[in-house]
Amino acid sequence: MEDQVEVVARAFVEHYYNLFNSNRASLSSLYQLSSILSFEGQSIIGADQIQQKLSGLPFGQCQHFISTIDSQPSVVAGSIIVFVTGSLKLLHEEYPLKFSQMFQLIPTLDGTFFVQNDIFRLTTLESWLLLNNPSLSQPK
Amino acid sequence: MEDQVEVVARAFVEHYYNLFNSNRASLSSLYQLSSILSFEGQSIIGADQIQQKLSGLPFGQCQHFISTIDSQPSVVAGSIIVFVTGSLKLLHEEYPLKFSQMFQLIPTLDGTFFVQNDIFRLTTLESWLLLNNPSLSQPK
Repeated sequence: MEDQVEVVARAFVEHYYNLFNSNRASLSSLYQLSSILSFEGQSIIGADQIQQKLSGLPFGQCQHFISTIDSQPSVVAGSIIVFVTGSLKLLHEEYPLKFSQMFQLIPTLDGTFFVQNDIFRLTTLESWLLLNNPSLSQPK
Repeated sequence: MEDQVEVVARAFVEHYYNLFNSNRASLSSLYQLSSILSFEGQSIIGADQIQQKLSGLPFGQCQHFISTIDSQPSVVAGSIIVFVTGSLKLLHEEYPLKFSQMFQLIPTLDGTFFVQNDIFRLTTLESWLLLNNPSLSQPK
């Protein structure tokens, strides 16, 4: 069972960050009405609102580099907690921003998963300053 | 409801790291038989085993400094997801180690909570090297 949890977690992480970096608008398909995102301390509820938040972030093309993926079975049958650390490289920025993120995945009736809980934090002060000052992220 | 979640999360974080730093052996009271800890990629199940792992870490006195606490209601009624970033200062070490950690708290029949899921990761390479080389943590 634990192996299956790990397999799902790794597949989800690959899928999620691929979508984020190639077609951010399509991320809404991973959330539902009840989903909650905490993004740098801001709380957003519902797939549409989460989609708007992610699409409205003050940076365009970016790339995620994953350092670690931890996963555990959660409480509801089949649900999975995924915990990711890594870094995020913005286009035209030399240095990547370190981040940590967790997801709770809930199984759907059609055999896939949706994201019920999503918490994202940059983990260095430099990261925070950069992401919150879009002027710093312009082409140099 | 969201305020209540935040209040519980903040109280838990204060309680957890206070116990960790003052009486690590008593942390076992926060876990149950079903609890799962992922500590730097190692998976440990059950309050006793988790207690042994935490008490056996290759450093003694330490201090946690909390940078951010995020919390969300989880799926089972009353359950809460807590996400922490901060740093960990070991005795005799000059520089703190950055970490990220998440907990899923499940309400108990007597009105408190236990930790069902706990995932801990150091978030810098320097942190990892130091914590995994206890010889580096000896008094200088």
